[in-house]
Amino acid sequence: MSYLKDNFLLYNKTAEKLYEQFAVKMPIFDYHCHLPEKQILENRPFGDIFEIWLAGDHYKWRLMRNFGADEKYITGDATNKEKFITYCTVLGTAFGNPLYHWSQVELKEFFGCEKEINQKNAEAIWEECNKYISENNVTPQSLIEGSNVKHIFTTNEVFDDLTTFEKIREKGYDFRVAPAYRGDKIMNIEADSYLEYIKKLEVLTIPLINLSSLEEALEMRLNAFIKVGCTASDIAVEQVLPVPDKRLAEKVYKRAYGGKKISPDEAEIFKGYLTYFLMKLYAKYDIRTELHVGAMRNNNTNMLNALGLDTGFDSISETNSIKNMSRLFDKLNCENSLPAVAVFNLNPKMNTEIMTLIGSFQSSEIEGKMQYGPAWWFLDNKVGMENHLKDLTATGHIAKFIGMLTDSRSFLSYPRHHYFRRILCNYLGDMMEKNEMTNDIDAVGKVIENICYTNAIKYFKIEE
Amino acid sequence: MSYLKDNFLLYNKTAEKLYEQFAVKMPIFDYHCHLPEKQILENRPFGDIFEIWLAGDHYKWRLMRNFGADEKYITGDATNKEKFITYCTVLGTAFGNPLYHWSQVELKEFFGCEKEINQKNAEAIWEECNKYISENNVTPQSLIEGSNVKHIFTTNEVFDDLTTFEKIREKGYDFRVAPAYRGDKIMNIEADSYLEYIKKLEVLTIPLINLSSLEEALEMRLNAFIKVGCTASDIAVEQVLPVPDKRLAEKVYKRAYGGKKISPDEAEIFKGYLTYFLMKLYAKYDIRTELHVGAMRNNNTNMLNALGLDTGFDSISETNSIKNMSRLFDKLNCENSLPAVAVFNLNPKMNTEIMTLIGSFQSSEIEGKMQYGPAWWFLDNKVGMENHLKDLTATGHIAKFIGMLTDSRSFLSYPRHHYFRRILCNYLGDMMEKNEMTNDIDAVGKVIENICYTNAIKYFKIEE
Amino acid sequence: MSYLKDNFLLYNKTAEKLYEQFAVKMPIFDYHCHLPEKQILENRPFGDIFEIWLAGDHYKWRLMRNFGADEKYITGDATNKEKFITYCTVLGTAFGNPLYHWSQVELKEFFGCEKEINQKNAEAIWEECNKYISENNVTPQSLIEGSNVKHIFTTNEVFDDLTTFEKIREKGYDFRVAPAYRGDKIMNIEADSYLEYIKKLEVLTIPLINLSSLEEALEMRLNAFIKVGCTASDIAVEQVLPVPDKRLAEKVYKRAYGGKKISPDEAEIFKGYLTYFLMKLYAKYDIRTELHVGAMRNNNTNMLNALGLDTGFDSISETNSIKNMSRLFDKLNCENSLPAVAVFNLNPKMNTEIMTLIGSFQSSEIEGKMQYGPAWWFLDNKVGMENHLKDLTATGHIAKFIGMLTDSRSFLSYPRHHYFRRILCNYLGDMMEKNEMTNDIDAVGKVIENICYTNAIKYFKIEE
Repeated sequence: MSYLKDNFLLYNKTAEKLYEQFAVKMPIFDYHCHLPEKQILENRPFGDIFEIWLAGDHYKWRLMRNFGADEKYITGDATNKEKFITYCTVLGTAFGNPLYHWSQVELKEFFGCEKEINQKNAEAIWEECNKYISENNVTPQSLIEGSNVKHIFTTNEVFDDLTTFEKIREKGYDFRVAPAYRGDKIMNIEADSYLEYIKKLEVLTIPLINLSSLEEALEMRLNAFIKVGCTASDIAVEQVLPVPDKRLAEKVYKRAYGGKKISPDEAEIFKGYLTYFLMKLYAKYDIRTELHVGAMRNNNTNMLNALGLDTGFDSISETNSIKNMSRLFDKLNCENSLPAVAVFNLNPKMNTEIMTLIGSFQSSEIEGKMQYGPAWWFLDNKVGMENHLKDLTATGHIAKFIGMLTDSRSFLSYPRHHYFRRILCNYLGDMMEKNEMTNDIDAVGKVIENICYTNAIKYFKIEE
Repeated sequence: MSYLKDNFLLYNKTAEKLYEQFAVKMPIFDYHCHLPEKQILENRPFGDIFEIWLAGDHYKWRLMRNFGADEKYITGDATNKEKFITYCTVLGTAFGNPLYHWSQVELKEFFGCEKEINQKNAEAIWEECNKYISENNVTPQSLIEGSNVKHIFTTNEVFDDLTTFEKIREKGYDFRVAPAYRGDKIMNIEADSYLEYIKKLEVLTIPLINLSSLEEALEMRLNAFIKVGCTASDIAVEQVLPVPDKRLAEKVYKRAYGGKKISPDEAEIFKGYLTYFLMKLYAKYDIRTELHVGAMRNNNTNMLNALGLDTGFDSISETNSIKNMSRLFDKLNCENSLPAVAVFNLNPKMNTEIMTLIGSFQSSEIEGKMQYGPAWWFLDNKVGMENHLKDLTATGHIAKFIGMLTDSRSFLSYPRHHYFRRILCNYLGDMMEKNEMTNDIDAVGKVIENICYTNAIKYFKIEE
Repeated sequence: MSYLKDNFLLYNKTAEKLYEQFAVKMPIFDYHCHLPEKQILENRPFGDIFEIWLAGDHYKWRLMRNFGADEKYITGDATNKEKFITYCTVLGTAFGNPLYHWSQVELKEFFGCEKEINQKNAEAIWEECNKYISENNVTPQSLIEGSNVKHIFTTNEVFDDLTTFEKIREKGYDFRVAPAYRGDKIMNIEADSYLEYIKKLEVLTIPLINLSSLEEALEMRLNAFIKVGCTASDIAVEQVLPVPDKRLAEKVYKRAYGGKKISPDEAEIFKGYLTYFLMKLYAKYDIRTELHVGAMRNNNTNMLNALGLDTGFDSISETNSIKNMSRLFDKLNCENSLPAVAVFNLNPKMNTEIMTLIGSFQSSEIEGKMQYGPAWWFLDNKVGMENHLKDLTATGHIAKFIGMLTDSRSFLSYPRHHYFRRILCNYLGDMMEKNEMTNDIDAVGKVIENICYTNAIKYFKIEE
C-alpha cells in the first residue's frame, strides 16, 4: 500500500475542512493544455497502462534520464512493459519530485491501484492496471468525465482544422472543448519549415505576400476560432522583445517569404512586432492572452535530431526582459489595446518583477485583468506552487486568481488540479490556524471555490 | 472581533518572551520615511479615518486595483466613505497580503477598533473610528508620541526649506525630526522640470553654471542640512551605473543647463558621476548613505499622466549592476572616501549578491559600516522579512543590524516596526526552541534591543 | 554547556533514525577541498587551537569584519590568543550563521569541548582546547582519520609537484589522497604573473611557444596527475564564456607569451576557448569536471594589496551565462566529448536554470553524469542546503546525487559533512512523517548511504 492518505498535503484540520467542504467538489476547467482534440473526438479505448501513462510524456522521460536510465527504455525499442518497469524503478526513489506524487495519485484515482510504485511492485502494478483497462472501457471521454472536467482549452496553431471542435460538440459529451489560438509557428520565422506553415495558412485564407496580408489572414483565422468557442490565445517566447517599427518587420517577413535565410537578429525584429500585433488583435476581440516566457528550448542538438521537439531537452532561460514587457504593455495600454494577460513565467528569479509589473496595469473593466499565471512546467511542484501563492498574496490579491491548469499532453493529468487545491487549502488553513487571517470558513471557502473554478469561468467568459 | 491575538506572529513561548521582555518596550527610531514635515509642524487634527488611512497611500491603491476596484473608488470622485468601504471590501479577502495585517493592527492600535475588516463590517468600522477621531484630538503629534517614536528622519530634496525643522524643535514635542539629504531631483537630469529644480537650488546657493559650481552648491546645502540635525542621506537609482570621467558628466550637465534635451545615455553618464560625487561628499562629512536600488518607475504612462508620480504604478526592475556597485565602492574605498552605506535592494534575486558584496567592504572604524537594509516596499511583508533575516544571518552578522523603518507617507505606519519585531523574535525564538542557538535569553534579548533601536541610534550618531 | 544536542537539526523521530541507522556510520569522501597536501605528508603536530582553527580561514575573518572587529585582531599583529578571544566574542551573537554551528561542533568533535562559544567563555575554551592539544598528538593524520575520512581530493595547479602524493601513499595512512587537476593559473591569462606560471609548466613539459604546444603540455600533465590517482578536474570561472575559434585564442596566447598586456576582451576569448579545450581533454580521459561558476573575486583592492588572494573579499557575481553553458555543453556533446560535469553554482538565482539545463545532457553511460553540485561557499549553510535539496528533488533525481564536500582549507571541516547529513535526513524524515513519501526506511536509508558516500565513490571511479 502506498504512502498516500486522504489528508495528503493537508497538515491541519482547517486545511482538511477547506478541502473537503469547498475544493474537492468543484468541477475542473482546464484552460491550458496540449491534448490532441482528434483523440478526444475519436475516443478510442486505450490498450495498456503504458499507452496512457508513458507514451508521450517528456516530463517522465526527463526524470528517467536524470536517474541514468538508458534511452532504449525511455523512447527506444524496448517493449512497453520494459519501459513501464524502468519508470517504476526510477520512480521508486524519486523522493520530492512531483512525478513521484502525481504518478501515485494517478494510479489510485484512475485505476484504483494503491500499490506503492517501485521496482519491487512494478510487475504487479502492470498486471493490475492492465486488468482494469481490459475490463473497463477506458477512453478519453471516460477519463475526462470521471475527473469532473467541464471545460477544456486545447492549444492550436492558426492553420489547424477546426471542424474537429464542431464534431466534438455534436458527440454530446458532458464537457466542452474549445481551441486556444496560438501563432507560434507563424511567429518562429527563422524555422526551416516556416514557408510550409505560411502555405498552410494561405490555403485557408489569402495570399500572404506581405505583412499586412499576414495580419489580415491572422484576423480571419481568429474569427474562425471564435466561431468554435475560442476566448483564449497563447504566445510563447523565450523573452519579450522590443517592439520595432512595422516597416522593419515587413522587410524581414518579405525576406522570409522570398525563401531567404533569417538571422537571429531579424527573427527578433519580426517576433517583437508580431507579439505586439497579436496582442492588439486579441484586445480588439476581447480574447485573453496567455503569455508564456522563460523557456530555452532544444539545448541538446543530438537528441533534437533523434527525437524531435518537446522530448525533454528544454530548460529555463536567463531572460532579462521585464523592461521590454513593461514597454510592450504600456504601448498597448496607451493605444487602448492592452488585452487581459495571464503571464506564465518559467524563471523564478523574475517572479516578483512580473508580479509587480502586472499590478501596474490592472483595470476594473475586467476583474483580475492582469494575472500572475500559476506555477508552470519546471515550477509545477509543491515548492513552486507554495512560492507562487506566497508571491501572489504578498504583492497581489489572491481572491481574483484564476487558478490551476495541467499544461499536459496526457489524459491522466487532472489530479494535478487536486494537487494544487490541496496545497491551496493547506496554505490558507495554516494561516487560519495561526490566526494570521479570518476564521470565517465560509468566506475563505468562497475564495477557494472561485480560485478552483469560478474565477476562470468568468475570466474566459464561459457561458454555462 | 478580528483574528488578531496578543501572540500574533509569535509561534512559540520563547518568541513570546523575547517580544514581551525585550522588543515591545523599545522606542522607535524611524530612520527613513516620507512624512511631510510641515504636517508635523502644523499638527492639525485629522477629520476622518479616510483622511488618515487612505488619502495618500499608494500601497493600498495598488491592492484595490489588483482586486479590480474602479479608479473612481480609489483616487476618483467617490466620497471618502465610499472609498473607505471599497477598501474594506477589497481587504476582506486579501489573505496573506501585508496590508491585510497592517490595516487590522492599525485600527486596533490607534482607534481601539477590533472589528474584522471586510465588506460586512465596513460601515460599523467607519462609524467607530470616526467617533474615536471626533472624541479625541488625533494629530500627527498624538499618533507619533502614542507610538513611542523618539526620532524621525524625513526625506528632503536639497532645495527644501529647512526652517520647518527648527520650528518643530521649538514645539517641544517628545520626539526629534531631522531631514535625510536627498539629491534625486538634481540627479534626474533627463526630467522636463530639471531646470526648475536647478533654479530652486541656485536661489539658495550660487549660480550653477557648471558641474563644479553644482558640486559646491550641493556641499553648501549638505552643511545646511547638518545644522538641523541631518546625519543621513538617500540615493535612489534604478541601478548603480559605471562612474565616468568628470569631463563627460560636465558636458552633459552643460547641455542640460543650456536647455538641451538629454538622452538616456547622457543621463546615465551624469547619474553615474553624481552618485560617486555625492557618496564622496557623504564620506567627507561622515554622513550615512541609504542607497535604494531596483525600482522601475512609472510603467503606466496613462496613469502617470492622470495621477502623477508615486501613485502605485512602479515595479521591480531587472537591474544587473552588482559589478558596477563593486567598482563604485572599491573606487571610493581606494580614495579613502567610502561612506557607511545601507543598501536597500528591491529585487530579491540580487539579495545574496549584495549581502556578500557589502561584506567585502566592512571596516572597524564604523560598527556595521556596510548594512544590508531591511526588506523594503514590495518585499516589506512577512515572507520578505523572513528571507531578509535568513540572508542576513547566513552570510552576515545579525548583531549589528540597524533594523526596521517605515518608508511611509502615513502617520499610522509605526505598527510596521512591531510587525518586524514580532517576526524577528519569532525567528530567534524558533531557533532557540530548536536548540540551534544559545538559550541565554538575556544575551539574545540584548541583540534584539539593539536591532530594535540602539544600533540605529549609534549608526546614525544620534545624541540622546 | 552549549546548545548542541544529539538530535541537532533532526526535528522528528524518523529523521533521527535515518541519521543514526544510516548516515552517521558512512565514511567520508571529501572530493573537493583546498588542503595543502604537503602538510598532510609532513604531519606535524599543531601548536594551539588558533593555529588549527583560525590561522587560514577567510570565512571566519569575513564574519569578524561583518561584526566590526579591527583587522589587527583578524589578520594583524595581535597575539594568537587575542585573535581567538575576538573570534569567540564575534561568534557569541552570530545566530543563524553557519560558522556559529560549525565552530561549536568542531570544538566538541575534535577537542571534546562543550562550552558555549562566547566572550565570557573564550578564555576557558582557549585553555581547555590548548590543554587537549598539548596532551594529545593532534596532527593532520589524527584529525582526518578521527573523522573517518577515506578519500581526499586536493586541488592542484597543473605545474604542482606530484611526488608529494606518492610519498603520502607510502606513509600508510588509513586514507588516500589524490589531486584534482586544475588549470586556473594557466586560464587566467590577464594575470601579471602569467608568464611565471607558463615557465613553471615549461620546466615540466615542453616549450610553450604556441597554443598547440600549451595543449600538448596540459595533456602531458593530466597524464601525470592520472598516474597519482587523479580522476577529477576543477574549472573556476566567473561565468561560462562563448567558445571562440581556436585561431582567435591562439592570437591572444601569443600576445601574452610575448609579454604583451592582455585586455579583458582578449582574456575572455582565451578563457572561452581553454574551458572548451580542457573539458574535451577531460572527456578523452574520462575525468570528471567540477565546474565552479558565479564568484566575483577581489572586490576590495586595498585589502587585496594588503593581504592577497582568498582572504575574504570575494562575493557572488551576477553572471548571466546559462545560454553560454548550454552552447558549450551542446558543442562538446555534438563532438561526443562532453565529460561528466558537476556544476557548482554560487548565485542562487541561477539554480533552476542550471538544474534544468544539466537535465538536458544526461546520458546512461555514466549514472548521474550531469550533477547539480551541493550548496557551496556562501550557500553552504542550513538554508542553502535545504534549498539545494528542494531544487534537486523538484526538477532532478535525488538518488544519484554525489553529496557533500568541504571546499575547505582547514583540517577541522569534516563536521560539515555531518551537518549536511543531518539536514538531508531531516529533509527526508520530514517528508516520511508527513506521508509525502514511502515509509520503507531501508529503501530510504539506502539512498542516504549512497548520497553520503557510495555515489561519489562510483562517480569518481574510486577502487576500494
